[in-house]
Order: sequence, then structure tokens, then C-alpha cells
Amino acid sequence: MRSDIEIAQSAKMEPIIKVAEKMGLTEDDIELYGKYKCKINLDVLQRNKDKKDGKLILVTAINPTPAGEGKSTVTVGLGQALSRTGKNAVIALREPSLGPVFGVKGGAAGGGYAQVVPMEDINLHFTGDMHAITAANNLLSAAIDNHIHQGNSLRIDSRRIIFKRVMDMNDRSLRSIVIGMGGKANGFVREDGFMITVASEIMAILCLASDLKDLKERMGNILVAYNLDGQPVYAKDLGVQGAMALLMKDAVKPNLVQTLENTPAIIHGGPFANIAHGCNSVLATKMALKIGDYAVTEAGFGADLGAEKFFDIKCRYGGLKPDCVVLVATVRALKHHGGVKKDELNTPNVEALAKGIKNLEKQIENVRKFGVPVVVAINKFITDSEEEVNFIHQFCEAAGVKVSLADVWAKGGEGGLDLAEKVIQTMEEEKVSFAPIYDEKLTIKEKVAIIAKEIYGANGVIYTPAASRQISELEGFGLDKLPICMAKTQYSLADNPSLLGRPEGFEITVKEVRVSNGAGFIVVQTGDVMTMPGLPKVPAANKMDILEDGEIVGLF
Amino acid sequence: MRSDIEIAQSAKMEPIIKVAEKMGLTEDDIELYGKYKCKINLDVLQRNKDKKDGKLILVTAINPTPAGEGKSTVTVGLGQALSRTGKNAVIALREPSLGPVFGVKGGAAGGGYAQVVPMEDINLHFTGDMHAITAANNLLSAAIDNHIHQGNSLRIDSRRIIFKRVMDMNDRSLRSIVIGMGGKANGFVREDGFMITVASEIMAILCLASDLKDLKERMGNILVAYNLDGQPVYAKDLGVQGAMALLMKDAVKPNLVQTLENTPAIIHGGPFANIAHGCNSVLATKMALKIGDYAVTEAGFGADLGAEKFFDIKCRYGGLKPDCVVLVATVRALKHHGGVKKDELNTPNVEALAKGIKNLEKQIENVRKFGVPVVVAINKFITDSEEEVNFIHQFCEAAGVKVSLADVWAKGGEGGLDLAEKVIQTMEEEKVSFAPIYDEKLTIKEKVAIIAKEIYGANGVIYTPAASRQISELEGFGLDKLPICMAKTQYSLADNPSLLGRPEGFEITVKEVRVSNGAGFIVVQTGDVMTMPGLPKVPAANKMDILEDGEIVGLF
Repeated sequence: MRSDIEIAQSAKMEPIIKVAEKMGLTEDDIELYGKYKCKINLDVLQRNKDKKDGKLILVTAINPTPAGEGKSTVTVGLGQALSRTGKNAVIALREPSLGPVFGVKGGAAGGGYAQVVPMEDINLHFTGDMHAITAANNLLSAAIDNHIHQGNSLRIDSRRIIFKRVMDMNDRSLRSIVIGMGGKANGFVREDGFMITVASEIMAILCLASDLKDLKERMGNILVAYNLDGQPVYAKDLGVQGAMALLMKDAVKPNLVQTLENTPAIIHGGPFANIAHGCNSVLATKMALKIGDYAVTEAGFGADLGAEKFFDIKCRYGGLKPDCVVLVATVRALKHHGGVKKDELNTPNVEALAKGIKNLEKQIENVRKFGVPVVVAINKFITDSEEEVNFIHQFCEAAGVKVSLADVWAKGGEGGLDLAEKVIQTMEEEKVSFAPIYDEKLTIKEKVAIIAKEIYGANGVIYTPAASRQISELEGFGLDKLPICMAKTQYSLADNPSLLGRPEGFEITVKEVRVSNGAGFIVVQTGDVMTMPGLPKVPAANKMDILEDGEIVGLF
Repeated sequence: MRSDIEIAQSAKMEPIIKVAEKMGLTEDDIELYGKYKCKINLDVLQRNKDKKDGKLILVTAINPTPAGEGKSTVTVGLGQALSRTGKNAVIALREPSLGPVFGVKGGAAGGGYAQVVPMEDINLHFTGDMHAITAANNLLSAAIDNHIHQGNSLRIDSRRIIFKRVMDMNDRSLRSIVIGMGGKANGFVREDGFMITVASEIMAILCLASDLKDLKERMGNILVAYNLDGQPVYAKDLGVQGAMALLMKDAVKPNLVQTLENTPAIIHGGPFANIAHGCNSVLATKMALKIGDYAVTEAGFGADLGAEKFFDIKCRYGGLKPDCVVLVATVRALKHHGGVKKDELNTPNVEALAKGIKNLEKQIENVRKFGVPVVVAINKFITDSEEEVNFIHQFCEAAGVKVSLADVWAKGGEGGLDLAEKVIQTMEEEKVSFAPIYDEKLTIKEKVAIIAKEIYGANGVIYTPAASRQISELEGFGLDKLPICMAKTQYSLADNPSLLGRPEGFEITVKEVRVSNGAGFIVVQTGDVMTMPGLPKVPAANKMDILEDGEIVGLF
């Protein structure tokens, strides 16, 4: 079996300028980064502002399992399939981060015959967006500590600096550090820590901004610290938001690449799916909608977190109206939700499937609560039995949902033709009545209650005393009328990763509440969130190499 | 008077593809980064390996002063002037670092009408080389701490880890830090610190490597730490040099831009001029020599440090043979060397000039010791009096050196025509008998003694006990047969910044000796070297902005 990188390296890529031309873009609309990558100038959106948007298709999934669902692979495969049927389809994806690339095998460029290329570049520095975010983030951090060192006229409380430095690397040693040691010349000593770049609020901002001006304003609004009177200090108080925007002048432009089958793919932004909203940028999605008749995009984790945030945060800020949701599941993952252990997933087991499919059932219900039609995609594995596949078909029929067995990993777009057809049929037949599930003007606790009950199926929400105090503080500052960004385990509908399937009779516990005021959401944490991963015993980096002739090996 | 950025923004740039075509490069030889920047594939060197090299002209200067000399400006202006006379000239420069851009006003893209463009891009992320170096450096750092965390089979002594993390930012708070706090999951606690990216040994390696294979080997040879038995631990022992090389796959290719007058300029690499050798990459200079009939390049600081390292390190490793040196001075700077204070430099003072010109005299003598012809360029200021300029002319005549008053800042290439003519004349008339000034196989103390006596004019060298111990240790490991990289104040020929002009009767004191084994030199420090700058009270960043229409303001 060929590896992902072997398949990617044998792809017949078209020069990206040709791909752009087919999309109606001129040479002046793009900035080339080599022959197979480019950025799209934002003027294109302005010029097409009166053009009707294409159809917006969101790919999401059941709660993820160790079995793997292949959401990105289905997203890419569906785009390829739509193209094959002669449709003008554009894919919109997230950018991978360097940290996981060198840590544990696994990129964000799809897999098998449903990949975006050039995958080496996409998975390494790509067009430099991650580095620009890192630089803008760390300029702000340097400005904070420099301000304190140079007299601290804002009276920043060095015990209450929220904004952290970032690095695009898995480096556990930087999670908790002490900075400013070594005496007067090196500033004041304080505790600090690094996050991985994708956890930066600037990444979330990039993904929600409508243009460079909005990006700058949002960066200025980042709550970076509290002063000695307990009042908020914002990035704009330090006066570096102009320089930060300058660092982001190219990063704000969406990137264009192609799939193995030359379908255009816009890849832009990739915020954390827990402490942020986990979707590619609004600008990328809008670009795909202006340029394509069908824009296929994805959200982070399972639908309870990913699709909910896509609807309630991204669509709300971006003024987007989704037309269809594709819910990805695998036979193996559904069996896992039914209680089957990882090493027994290859054995047919309809009984477990019947239990586990409740997770899919709930996710279907959830999507419908937002007023968006849904199609189920079963991402095919060779171990799937006919009986199991039939069972899922019958289940979906009963639920009134179209279902397709997608074989895009092995067959590319060809393997997704049936799915593409069913998605198009669904959009023709079913009405959309999209609306976010809560009003952002409600109180924080009201908003969280709606998400917990309606989406997770919880009985209620418990707040730790600290969380309640944090909510009161945000209300006191008038920083509470924002959408909610839930940080919860992705493995369960509940806040306990061992509660698989469709748990009932549970409550979720909120442990921490804080505002990402620049991004424009309240982060509600139901547990500890790891914002800086570590490397495993044998990092993926140790297998990677580039040979004398330029051949790359060991990268997936 | 127009600012540098105003002049740069009004430049009539040619598409870089046209600039490349004029140089004989095809579309397949380059990788575009937008319309005005590209990388040049290394195949070009291979393809032209039998082609005769052009003439190599090094621009260096007297010991720098607060008055400013304008070495980069003269380098760019000379290139422009050579082009104007119909010569096929190519400029080779260093890449600027983000840190100083946001700290104190001043870039590395020339000035006035002798600039390289697009200066905004060159001074910001450019083509991402700095970020690639940062990533490769920090991957190695993460691998070191991960190795210790995962069992430390190499028995690395966490008290003796030499290799530091880097960030391309001026951030004093990161100079001295404690990492790995917060318990078992976050690794072992140890002292660490960040340097600015240009201080990374990987930057020095990039600038000395002959190709990607050599780059990888050198990165593997970095001495990162000692083990508990006091034995060296190298980067290759951690097995990530392949992944590091992969991160550098594009960074290894030189970047092509143009001057305000469309002269091709290759900008690639920019290591520290104290703890490293301070020159653009060997690959960039070789590319300029293959493509151009005249390659104009520069070195760091004054000639005592910059030119010496250019000859003894860069030319030695790169197999380069310089044809001419241009020594830049200004009337103001020479008066400063003669004891005039900064606020009195505008007043004519031939007496002080006569004292200060001794610095120029010594630098001329030094260049001649390497067997390379020299031309003096006086970078014109409006405050220069005729009497002062005449004095320098007479001095140079007596010394048998051609001298030219260069007005490239105000007039671009036009203002450098006389200099260009004198450089060409000198190369036609004078013989080159280039050789490094010491044999690298000598002992460390023998090599340092030669540099100190021959170049600095010192009576001798004093070693602290620590430095002598470090030398013995390196000799014990057989790591001493490498060229020397002196770290000394750039303001004086001596190791005391207040000794201006041509000091005599002094000794230099060596305080620390260590090896940059990947780069391939011994760093000999005569004082503390600051490897992470800080931001000033009002950073340059605070004046920068990008407006709604994309106009950039406040960047120089």
C-alpha cells in the first residue's frame, strides 16, 4: 500500500496559476508562492460582492474515536467528486501546525487519494501564515514585558498577565516557565508559559476577521492583562496593533492549492477546536462561496463541538448561511461508541453498532436544531461487513436522512460520486431555515445552558466557585455579550471522555470562564485544556529526511 | 526630505521574473514569492559550474561610530552604478531580522536612493528564511528536552546544555529563564534562555553551507550539550537533523530582489557579526559570481571584524577569491575617531580628521595583508567641507589608494559612477594575491595571536583562567582545528569601545572560548555578547501601521 506522501508525490499537479484561471481569477488576483501555491488578494471579494454566493456544505462528524473517522479525507473527496460531476466546487480547509507534524504522525491534508497537494509544503511552512501569527503574538508579548520594564505607566499587574507567548512546536518544557531572570537589565521576574501557535488568540482572530481593518481592531481588543486595580488592559493600550497588522498583511489573504484531482482548495487558518472555534477562516470560506458554486468546508472535532461553533460563532460573525451538513462516521467508530475495544474493531458486531449509532442519531438531531439539512457519509474501511453497512443504511432511512458509503480514501473523487449526488439532491429537496441556537445577548449561564441541554443532552450545568466569580467579573466589565466557545472533551457528548454513545442523565461542570475579547467569544472550559503538546518518545521528526536529490521521506 | 519608505514605495519595480530573465535565468530556475521576490534554485550553480566566476567586490568599513557610515547604502549604490555603466552587476546582501525592525529604526536594505525593494517585504517576513531557521533551531531544542524527559539515554547533563532556543524578536525577558516547571508532565526543570534568531548557529550554518547535504551534515555536527561524563553531545545524536534539513529545504535557496534601479540583488542569510561571521550566505555570493560579471557584497561591522571574518571564514569555506575591497568611511565618522563628540560632527575640523583617519589607515593596511586591492569610498554628507574632503583625498593619494566621494544616498547609482570606475580601474591595475591570514591547523592561541597582532595592532592576548580551561577542553576533544570567529566590540580596533582611531600599546583579553562545531568555527569572546536585544522605551513598532488601502506607514 502506498503511503500518503508517495501518493501525493506522484500527483499530476497543475500550475496553480491555471487552477486560478479556471476559477476566473486573473494574474493580478493572486500572489504566487512557487508554482503550486498562491495567495488570493482580498480585492476579489470586494469585486464580487454583488455576485450570488455558492452553496455552503459543512463536513462534520460523530464524536471522534481512536478508530479515526477521516473527516478531512471526506471533505477533500467530496470536493473532488463534485468536480468530477462537472460542478464548480471549491474546498475550504484549515492549515496544519508544525507541532503535530513533528510529534505524532498525522497531517491535515486529507489522506489516500483524497488529499490536497503539495502536501510537503502545506504541512511544513506553507505560505508562512503560522509564522506571521507567531511573530505578531510574540511582538505583543514583548511589548507587554517591555512596558512593565520601562516604567509600567499602565500599572499592569504582572501576576495577572493572560496573554502568553507562542511557538509552532510541540515543546512541553515551555508550558510553565519563569522569565525575566538575571537582574535588572532583563526585566521583572514573572511566571509565564508558551502555547502552540494555533492556540493564539491571533489565530482565532484571523479566522473571524472580515478584512485587515477588522483584524487590526480585533487584535487591539485582545484582553492581555489586568492592572493593579483589577481593570482590564487591552492590546491597543500598548499601541502595537498597527505593527501586528503589518506582520499579518500577507497572512490575512487566503491560500489556494489543489487536490490530487486538481480541484481548487483554499487553506487558511486553523485555530484550536477547544479554546477557539476550530474552523478555517471566514475569508477563505467567503472566497470559496464567491468563486465556487459549491463550497465544501469542515469544522473541528465532532459535530457537538465543531458544528455548533461553526454555526454559533463562525456563521454568526461571517454572516454565513450553511446549505447542507455532511456527517461523517465509520462502522469502526460507531462500534467503538457501542463499547468495542480498539483491537476488536475489525470483527463484525451489529449489536455494538446498534448501541453506538445513538451518537450519530444525536448529532443528526443536533444539526437539525440549527435548521440545516443533513447527509450521512460512511467513510469506508475494508473491514466493514455488508451487514453492518446495511444496518446503518436502515437506521438512516428510518431517521429520514440520506446516507452514502464513501470510498474516497481508496478511489478519490470517483469513490465520492454517490455522496456528491445525495448532497446535491438533499439541497434541492430540503429547506434551510438556519439560525444560531442561542441569542448572544443572553447571560453567559443562559447561553451555556442552551448548548449543554440542546446539543450535549445534559440535564444541567454546574459551575465551580472560580467559574462563577469569573463570570461575574466579565459581566462587571460588560464583556459577556459574546458567543460562547465551549472547551470540552471531543470524545463524548458529555464532559467525560469515557461516556461514549449517547450519554443521558449527566451534568457538565464548568471550571473556568474567560474572554477572548479580540476574537469575540467567551471560552467556557469544562476541564483542563492542553495548549502546548509534547513530543512522544520517538517523535515523527526522527523518521523524516530530505535526500540529496530533494526527495522527502518519512513525512506521513 | 522623503523617507526611505516613501522613496521605496515610489520605485518602479520590474516583475522579478523579468529581472531573472535578464540574468539568464529561466522560469524553472526560480520560485516566485509574489511578483517582486523569488528564490533561485540551487541547480543553477550546478549547471554553471564550468562557467568562469565574475569579480568579487567586498564592501567593508572603518570601525563604526554613532555618526553612521552607510555600508549597505554604498554596497547597493555601487551595484547600481556598475549597472549604469552597462556592467552585469549583482549585489549580495544579508537578510534583516524582525527584532531590530520593531526595536530601533534601521533596516538592512540600504537607504535613500540606494535601496533594495520591496523593502517592506524584505524587512518583514521576506520569503520566510528567518522563520525556517527559528523552527529548525527550536525543533532541536524541543528534541533535547524531550530526550531528557523520555529517559535521557544519552545521559545529557541538563546543567551543561549549550544550545538555546531562539525567537526573531527583541525580547529581553527571555534572556534568562527557567523552563520545565509545573511538575512531571512538563519535563525537568532547568535554566535556559532565548537568543534572537540571527544568533542561532543554524543561521551561521546556512551561510557557510555549500548545499542542502552539507547543511544537514553541519546541523548534525552542532555541539548541543555535554553528558554527565563531560563528553560532547551532538545534534545528530538526537536524530533530528533530517527533519531540520527538511524545514530548511526552501530557506537554503538564495532570494532574488532588485534595487530601486532594477539591479539584481541576492539577499540571503544574516548571521551575527560577533558570535558568528556576519556575512550573507556562501551560496548567495557564489550565485552572484556565476550570474554576474561583478558581484558586490558586504561584511558586518568594521573591516577588523567583518572583512577579517569574510576572508578567514567565509572565503576559506566557500573557496572564494576576492578581487577588490571598498572601504567605506565618512568625514563625520573619521572626525568621531579623532575625538569629536556627536553633536559637533557637523563643524569642519581637519585637525580631528587627521587624528581619526588613522583608523582608516590601519584598515587599509589590514586589507592589504590579505593580498587584496583596496579603494576608499567616502559616503557623502551635506555637512562635509571641501577642505575635509580634500584632506582625505590627499591622505589616500599618499597611501597609494584610490578614493571616491560617493553620493549614492542622494543620487543613487548616478552618485556612485566615479566609485565604480575606480573599482574597475583598481581591479585592472592591481594584482590579487589573496590568502587567509592564519593556518587553521595552528593552535587556538596561535591563531588568536595572529589576528590580535596583525589586524588589531595589539601587543598580545591575555586569557582568563576560564578561557584557557575552555581551550584545553576543546583541544582534548580535537575540536580546535577550526577558523577563529572573534567576538569583540565593533567600535574599536581594541577590545575597549572607547579606544577610537588607531590605538596602540594595548592587549586584548579573551574571556570565553567555545566551538560552533556545526558552523565550523571557534568563537573567541573578548567581552559579554548580547544575543537577545531588548526593546527601547518607545519601540519603532509603536509608529508602524498598515492603513485600510494597504498603505504601510512608519516602517523607516
